[in-house]
Amino acid sequence: MSKYLAERYQTIEVYTPGEQPQNRRYIKLNTNESPYPPAPAVSDAVRREAGRLELYSDPTCWELRSALARRYGGRAENVFVSNGSDEILSFAFMAFGGCGKKVYFPDISYGFYRVYADLYGYPSSMIPLREDFSIDCSDYVGLDGFIVIANPNAPTGMALKLEQMIRIIESNPDHVVLVDEAYIDFGAESCVRLTDRYENLLVVQTFSKSRSMAGARLGFAIGQESLIRDLEVIKYSTNPYNVNRMTLAAGLASLSDENYTVENCRKIIEVRDTTTQKLTEMGFQVLPSSANFVFARHPGYSGTDLYQKLKEEGVLVRHFNTPRTADFLRITIGTSEQMDVLMNALNRIMEV
Amino acid sequence: MSKYLAERYQTIEVYTPGEQPQNRRYIKLNTNESPYPPAPAVSDAVRREAGRLELYSDPTCWELRSALARRYGGRAENVFVSNGSDEILSFAFMAFGGCGKKVYFPDISYGFYRVYADLYGYPSSMIPLREDFSIDCSDYVGLDGFIVIANPNAPTGMALKLEQMIRIIESNPDHVVLVDEAYIDFGAESCVRLTDRYENLLVVQTFSKSRSMAGARLGFAIGQESLIRDLEVIKYSTNPYNVNRMTLAAGLASLSDENYTVENCRKIIEVRDTTTQKLTEMGFQVLPSSANFVFARHPGYSGTDLYQKLKEEGVLVRHFNTPRTADFLRITIGTSEQMDVLMNALNRIMEV
Repeated sequence: MSKYLAERYQTIEVYTPGEQPQNRRYIKLNTNESPYPPAPAVSDAVRREAGRLELYSDPTCWELRSALARRYGGRAENVFVSNGSDEILSFAFMAFGGCGKKVYFPDISYGFYRVYADLYGYPSSMIPLREDFSIDCSDYVGLDGFIVIANPNAPTGMALKLEQMIRIIESNPDHVVLVDEAYIDFGAESCVRLTDRYENLLVVQTFSKSRSMAGARLGFAIGQESLIRDLEVIKYSTNPYNVNRMTLAAGLASLSDENYTVENCRKIIEVRDTTTQKLTEMGFQVLPSSANFVFARHPGYSGTDLYQKLKEEGVLVRHFNTPRTADFLRITIGTSEQMDVLMNALNRIMEV
Repeated sequence: MSKYLAERYQTIEVYTPGEQPQNRRYIKLNTNESPYPPAPAVSDAVRREAGRLELYSDPTCWELRSALARRYGGRAENVFVSNGSDEILSFAFMAFGGCGKKVYFPDISYGFYRVYADLYGYPSSMIPLREDFSIDCSDYVGLDGFIVIANPNAPTGMALKLEQMIRIIESNPDHVVLVDEAYIDFGAESCVRLTDRYENLLVVQTFSKSRSMAGARLGFAIGQESLIRDLEVIKYSTNPYNVNRMTLAAGLASLSDENYTVENCRKIIEVRDTTTQKLTEMGFQVLPSSANFVFARHPGYSGTDLYQKLKEEGVLVRHFNTPRTADFLRITIGTSEQMDVLMNALNRIMEV
């Protein structure tokens, strides 16, 4: 850090993304990417766009927003798109967290929420998960500040039911409830269709996971027009051309082939259930997952140890070294072949 | 706007990008895009990357930063890359403008500087250009705050000399001097080679203009390692995967064919000089430009009027309706054929 950095940022603990090794080939089960390539239409659309890069992208992203509205309901005015859903989260924290009150989110959740709150200087309250790692929705009833909930939660994979979400949303009419649905397509109930009923509800999703587009960077939010306009105030004050032409084309193409996405999700859910069963048979405790990953611990091995030994075996998983999560591994669901490699590696490690 | 938007953002005047018409075909001379497509290697690289979008991009952007370091001097640690140079500007304002002092920039310059200062709540001082629209570098000597200077300046196109920049940088050792060199490849002297001498110098450039990649969104900054690390604090607290895989590949490919960029710049400079001469012959005052645009006014016509009539003729230019700029048009330099269309349109408008 230099002496020029504003004092308030000098002590920030930044977010640490999962390892993205650029050389050695690992079985990469550490950042919840899809094991499948994007739909063929996506690659075709990008290839067509590749020769037209001299012109700026449409800053309003109107065509993509219209397509998302057709897919998820509502109108283009109800949709915001961004350079990955992290950017929306950043914008939303900025816009809705600055009410002079606290920002509320679970103590074990996407690690970035704390970073955003710190960055923008908002006090935050991290509400502990229950002993079984579920979110107790009654903890979020009638709070006094911006609320952020990942559903399904990460890294646990556990989901709240729609009626639980409604209870939270209805009991906090004076503050925005942001539901981060990055993993929604793998089995949980989406709040998207509630957005026309609740003006304080903002639902955030991503093309990174179920749509196999982590490397294209595309997130979106759905909410009432006034909330979307708030996000646009931030966008047009930071980076109006935030989504490039290739990603806009890729997003549109992905929406043109929903069967491809649905079928990939079906396969991942199937492999997740088999993986859960096999890990359980090996003595792991596996939290009930509605996502494209499982969160699991073994009574006989520390999380650090298993993470390290799996890495030596060429399998990357994610380990979060905080008191309540240190025993666990977060394992992304890959193809069944990739999961076989994982299982074989675990067997070797545990036989030693 | 909703009632949920933090109060401090409710009165922000956001940045207004130039029109990006999505239907009618205009001769588009309004947002300083290149009239040429990106280098063939760029499109090829994007096409190769199009099938690999399921994996996150490298958040460190190491390969591209190394290539930029090879091209511009220094090491990868001296280079920061971002989702367009607007994002770097936003990060830099955040990081370096928050010193509790004012932010200084010219009154007529890139309109976004004021927006960033407002967004982050930093008081700003807009230093008037001289009567001839040049920057008086003595106005920037020994100030007490973050300084931002576009060189060449936009929308005037006028450049400061290297010794003038050095005077500003040397006389402000306690604050960062950000030099926005978006248009540097069209004839002005870059400060990049000064970055190893001055720890308070941050130079920002973009692939949007000379490298024909406005639609791919890629900007970069060069400075001493400690300044680059400051920008990384902001990046890893907002959007670590800020540059997508396709854009990383496109940037690398662009750097592999410098002759293509140099030759395009040569053509644009040539057309700029011819355009300046023709406009002058038509009675325009044209400011001396070192950029890929000219800023021109005609004593017989208002800027609004000419802008509107050119639009009716199918030619889009940019008009900034502020007191000192209202008479002017900012005209992007296109191909000589596009400039002929502009000249013919102007001739028709002025004959009426």
